[in-house]
Amino acid sequence: MDLHILDHRLRVTSISKNGLVNYTHPLIKLIFLRNRTRCKFFSLTETPENYTVVLDEEGFKELPPSEHLQVESSIWLPLNVASNGNASSSSQAVGVTKIAKSVIAPLAQQHVSVFMLSTYQTDFILVREKDLSVVVSTLEEEFNIFKEVEGEYVPVCCQDFTNGLQKNGKEAIQPTVHPVLIPQNQFCVMSLDPDTLPSIATTLIDVLFYSNSFSPKEDSESSAGQDSDCIEFFSFSLIDGYISLVMDTEAQRRFPADLLFTSSSGELWRMVRIGGQPLGFGESFCF
Amino acid sequence: MDLHILDHRLRVTSISKNGLVNYTHPLIKLIFLRNRTRCKFFSLTETPENYTVVLDEEGFKELPPSEHLQVESSIWLPLNVASNGNASSSSQAVGVTKIAKSVIAPLAQQHVSVFMLSTYQTDFILVREKDLSVVVSTLEEEFNIFKEVEGEYVPVCCQDFTNGLQKNGKEAIQPTVHPVLIPQNQFCVMSLDPDTLPSIATTLIDVLFYSNSFSPKEDSESSAGQDSDCIEFFSFSLIDGYISLVMDTEAQRRFPADLLFTSSSGELWRMVRIGGQPLGFGESFCF
Repeated sequence: MDLHILDHRLRVTSISKNGLVNYTHPLIKLIFLRNRTRCKFFSLTETPENYTVVLDEEGFKELPPSEHLQVESSIWLPLNVASNGNASSSSQAVGVTKIAKSVIAPLAQQHVSVFMLSTYQTDFILVREKDLSVVVSTLEEEFNIFKEVEGEYVPVCCQDFTNGLQKNGKEAIQPTVHPVLIPQNQFCVMSLDPDTLPSIATTLIDVLFYSNSFSPKEDSESSAGQDSDCIEFFSFSLIDGYISLVMDTEAQRRFPADLLFTSSSGELWRMVRIGGQPLGFGESFCF
Repeated sequence: MDLHILDHRLRVTSISKNGLVNYTHPLIKLIFLRNRTRCKFFSLTETPENYTVVLDEEGFKELPPSEHLQVESSIWLPLNVASNGNASSSSQAVGVTKIAKSVIAPLAQQHVSVFMLSTYQTDFILVREKDLSVVVSTLEEEFNIFKEVEGEYVPVCCQDFTNGLQKNGKEAIQPTVHPVLIPQNQFCVMSLDPDTLPSIATTLIDVLFYSNSFSPKEDSESSAGQDSDCIEFFSFSLIDGYISLVMDTEAQRRFPADLLFTSSSGELWRMVRIGGQPLGFGESFCF
């Protein structure tokens, strides 16, 4: 298998729920106005606790510092697993399960944290830039590792990095038991032609920025956020020109059915939430 | 002629240029998300100095106080001149020139200030609520005055108001000479079916909220705002469900030609700006 180190340098941030109004201006720019920004990697995810925003340094410049914005101090690099072979059996074929076994578990043995970001198009494994030498040392046995340089993939030699492999690499990880929560709502993972993004702009803005605010016509209705068995989760990403949306079926009904597309099977996903409290950032995964 | 006192109680506010980013969240709600607000009268006008926002009390609640928001202390009431007769010769027939002669000049003699708000559909004359008795006393000779009450127009008797007419009502106004500026750009006054507003959302958001910000692809282009012979002016209003837009021809080119409509003659307007500095609020008029 191939492992690609993509040419983005990312920041992982979170915006508090009641601080979102202060970030409407830069976020709308990053989501809808591609001509106004050089940001190429942007992801916004609403969770019950906050809004997690992962974005490259060009995008990060747009977010003014405030008490509502928490910034993880590291630079993160996105990795991408691709089954080698022809283009048609692309990274789509390598699922999270395989990534967990071949990437996340070996890195965990080296005490390297990862941040997973799953989109319609692919799954990104984010690692801290300072851990990169350990990542390469750890994964080079199983993977052909390439680094994206100006759009080209250049093979990475282990000598490029000081070997950061820990000598206790083979020690067994102590299993930790986490509580697991499985919310009732079902999710779909969708995409959208970027040219039709303007057509869903007002709905997307409404869902992202106003779903928790007062709505006179919905006084008596309960929303997913108020239902304790459901989870508030909505994710939008715009990465290298590709859009991905993860939303529950209730949110999906608000969008025009003919513009968003999902995989041919149209399957719905349930969420398994590990731990009652966030394990750092981005603790919720769809399986 | 008929004079209608409309059933809106308005606030006249201004947002500083560099404070607009802090008001993106409520303004986008007021412009695009009609289901989320009870505001029925909203107008946003960009001038070279600031953004003037006129809106009813429901809308005003959405604007958080800050150093960037100036609020005129009065409540303002919108008046509307309609030529009486059948509906087809509606208020459209009564232009600003006639209003100036029959409404603004007599009120000026009584030292009553007015705020004019011209839209595609009609021209609103805003007067302070505390001046209403003087307004009625002054205009009842020339107009049949009606007050809108729950959608019905009820005749207003002068006895409804204490007579606030000043005895020196007939004194001549001292003419004042103001410098007059005529910017080079040409303006069009347009409308839009509210159901198609989402289709122009991203363009409208771009023009309203980001036209002064950095745009990597437009580095070398000059915009109207930077051209000293042109004036930065853009107006959007959503009043009782009707949309009106006033923009120069440069901004117009950014919108899809098939959605915005203008009067059949399609005439362009030039602006006459009276005085170098704002005379209070809303000092710029199209003639």
